[in-house]
Amino acid sequence: MSAVPTIRQLLVRPRLCSIGLNSSSSPFLSYALSLHCCPSSLRVLSSSSSPTLTHEEADGSVGKGSSLIDVNPPRGTRDFPPDDMRLRSWLFQNFREVSRILSFEEVDFPVLESEALFIRKAGEEITQQLYNFEDKGGRRVVLRPEITPSLARLVIKQGKSVSLPLKWFTIGQCWRYERMTRGRRREHYQWNMDIFGVSKVRAEAELIQAVVLLFERLGIKSSDVGIRVSSRKVLQAVLQMYAIPENLFTQVCVIVDKLGKITREEMEKELVSLGVSIKAVNGIIEVLSLKSLSKLEEVLGSEGEAVSELKKLFSLAESYGYADWICFDASVVRGLAYYTGIVFEAFDRQGKLRAICGGGRYDRLLSTFGSDDIPACGFGFGDAVIVELLKEKALLPDLSHKVDDIVFPLDEVLDGTASSIASSLRKKGRSVDLVEDKRLKWVFKHAERIGASRLILVGNSEWERGAVRVKNLSTREEFEVKIDELD
Amino acid sequence: MSAVPTIRQLLVRPRLCSIGLNSSSSPFLSYALSLHCCPSSLRVLSSSSSPTLTHEEADGSVGKGSSLIDVNPPRGTRDFPPDDMRLRSWLFQNFREVSRILSFEEVDFPVLESEALFIRKAGEEITQQLYNFEDKGGRRVVLRPEITPSLARLVIKQGKSVSLPLKWFTIGQCWRYERMTRGRRREHYQWNMDIFGVSKVRAEAELIQAVVLLFERLGIKSSDVGIRVSSRKVLQAVLQMYAIPENLFTQVCVIVDKLGKITREEMEKELVSLGVSIKAVNGIIEVLSLKSLSKLEEVLGSEGEAVSELKKLFSLAESYGYADWICFDASVVRGLAYYTGIVFEAFDRQGKLRAICGGGRYDRLLSTFGSDDIPACGFGFGDAVIVELLKEKALLPDLSHKVDDIVFPLDEVLDGTASSIASSLRKKGRSVDLVEDKRLKWVFKHAERIGASRLILVGNSEWERGAVRVKNLSTREEFEVKIDELD
Repeated sequence: MSAVPTIRQLLVRPRLCSIGLNSSSSPFLSYALSLHCCPSSLRVLSSSSSPTLTHEEADGSVGKGSSLIDVNPPRGTRDFPPDDMRLRSWLFQNFREVSRILSFEEVDFPVLESEALFIRKAGEEITQQLYNFEDKGGRRVVLRPEITPSLARLVIKQGKSVSLPLKWFTIGQCWRYERMTRGRRREHYQWNMDIFGVSKVRAEAELIQAVVLLFERLGIKSSDVGIRVSSRKVLQAVLQMYAIPENLFTQVCVIVDKLGKITREEMEKELVSLGVSIKAVNGIIEVLSLKSLSKLEEVLGSEGEAVSELKKLFSLAESYGYADWICFDASVVRGLAYYTGIVFEAFDRQGKLRAICGGGRYDRLLSTFGSDDIPACGFGFGDAVIVELLKEKALLPDLSHKVDDIVFPLDEVLDGTASSIASSLRKKGRSVDLVEDKRLKWVFKHAERIGASRLILVGNSEWERGAVRVKNLSTREEFEVKIDELD
Repeated sequence: MSAVPTIRQLLVRPRLCSIGLNSSSSPFLSYALSLHCCPSSLRVLSSSSSPTLTHEEADGSVGKGSSLIDVNPPRGTRDFPPDDMRLRSWLFQNFREVSRILSFEEVDFPVLESEALFIRKAGEEITQQLYNFEDKGGRRVVLRPEITPSLARLVIKQGKSVSLPLKWFTIGQCWRYERMTRGRRREHYQWNMDIFGVSKVRAEAELIQAVVLLFERLGIKSSDVGIRVSSRKVLQAVLQMYAIPENLFTQVCVIVDKLGKITREEMEKELVSLGVSIKAVNGIIEVLSLKSLSKLEEVLGSEGEAVSELKKLFSLAESYGYADWICFDASVVRGLAYYTGIVFEAFDRQGKLRAICGGGRYDRLLSTFGSDDIPACGFGFGDAVIVELLKEKALLPDLSHKVDDIVFPLDEVLDGTASSIASSLRKKGRSVDLVEDKRLKWVFKHAERIGASRLILVGNSEWERGAVRVKNLSTREEFEVKIDELD
């Protein structure tokens, strides 16, 4: 979920990180400003001077009155003016449509959760940046950093009333709190798909098909994006080879996932302080560098679950027809503590962006909540990186506002007639904008701005004949139409 | 927004208020549990003993392990399991469709806002129950109690880049914090439609049409629901008659709105302590009891804006064709401090429920934020009372889960074939559930549970002929179909 961009990547897109949030000038850029957009390295890059006023630098003043409120939303959060909102709705609609096609049911949870649900001791970034506070009743609550624990909570709560397997999806906002550096965001939206009750890699294969179907719907090709796949069981097997106690597994995973963000030396130090020998560290790093399943089989043998499950997944991928999208990459570990098996992440093949989505199997999460375990896996797919990618590939659709009709009375005494015309068109399901007290010239400009198809002019002379003037705004043709024949 | 149910009403529906939140047994009931469901009076009714365990009383335990987490969401919040979520999505889809028909554009704002946006000193309930806290950076923030101030903030921020009039809608979650009494909720969703830049009552007329269109889409009739309309300018005129200083206007409105929740004596006391004479209090109460526009005209004369705007609105209502939905009722004041003109609220004519939605004109909100004023009006329409009403009128639609196909391999070796069949059907847009490792009997039960239309059995003998068995689950007919002819 949190691969850090390299300095090179940041140099390629510095303005993306420092552009303001005013969407009227750049709706898609502001939308693409991502939760993890600018790590501290960028501060060095642009600390001297920046040609673009950033959201954080702007004082938010619009008028001159000293009492003007800050018109920006709280630091790290976004408004969605109409352009940005259309883009978001379109993206979410695609999330929903793919989920429907895979036969998942939508669920939702409070954005505010009990802190206890997210307290994990493995040192994950996500739990170190909780947006938590105490409510007035003294309860520790949190604006959720992720959705999986809520899903697990609801599965436990529903208990025997749900039938397994259970296939749920949700789209919700997630939060994190950290000291603000420029452009970093404190919230993003995330599409989650999760399957409970399937222990076989069929579940992972289904989830990956969903991700691929989404990409295909958006016009993204397997030459643009790949999905790296590995398994936590690879690391588990390596730990066994070096007789490292099983209770260190989660912590080792979380540390190993940081490679790339921290240096090899730092990682080594962290692992050694856990009690992992240098020899084992080297063994771990060696295995993590493998990019081929047959090489992995050479190292681990073909008997273990790591290899057999990965082989099964790649064979299913052939059957589904998405084999060209996925590749084995042992370095994929993912940063969440609770993954236990297959893990995967989608990445842009140009290597410019952070992971587009990530997921994996978490068969032992429920027991950490005191319940019986149910095999489970899922993924989270954020709303930020995908939009950056679509923008880069020029795949953002034309989402301008569209309206069927503008009804415009040319005389104030006709406002009742205009009302009843608008009303009857609306009852037929047409979208109608009723305009008053404007000049005709303004109305034509307005029609263009809102993408109206027809202009219905309610004038005195036509009205006396029980008619209106209708102008088709694409063909520029004009007709007189009887009011009761309008449709 | 917060008319309090009478004890009689509560007696009619006591279980609605004390029922648990487990949606699997009662999806619609749990959804309908509303923000203001159970006032303190209910505590008296059921403090002795309750046959139904409430959400608040239940300890949330499912298993026996002492370490089981609380499986309930935080107090006063809801999970949305699939049944509840389908209902919510259906409702929101209707909100969106009506907004589209009225040619409004969707926007959104952070659920977390600066507290400053909601600090008003008029004594409103909404500002006394802020879900506020200090973030780690020492900023006062709040889970927004309403959306209008965010809308106004964005309008100011967009400044000259937006063209007026501006018609925006949004659907978002709103929060309030208060000590929990049984069944009260701390969050609800609200549909808002707002128009900026129209000073005439045309704007109110459009908003009321939207509300009526929504009711009509849901199957609600004007014999079920009415919309009470008045104007804050009525009160303003009365204050002028008694020479009450204009700066008391807002506070008087907020106090007067409480009538029904507090006794007349309490209200009198509050007004007198503001500096309003007993004579003026009596005058206010007399005018507020008026239910006819002609009576109002007798008292206030026909010259003032209060009367002329109301008359215009009722005349437009005739033209739109929704006159039978609305009625003048001077007692409607609404509880928000910032309303300045027409105010309205929808109510069930049986008088069992709180207001279904409420809105009005707020021409002077922007200047309280330090910006130039823009005439504006809007309404908020919650997700709770409407669902209670639909349930009562038996208007809730059948929203069961629907799936096109279940693909089921009868033999494990056919899981690849099943994958490719499912994949190709999904690429055609069909929703497909792929089932493995179950008995055929389970699959049939499952098909019923998820509302599947077809069952596709992948068996060895058919597969050898390049075919599958297809069972139409509504007609019970079975065919053998060539795999490459499936669609």
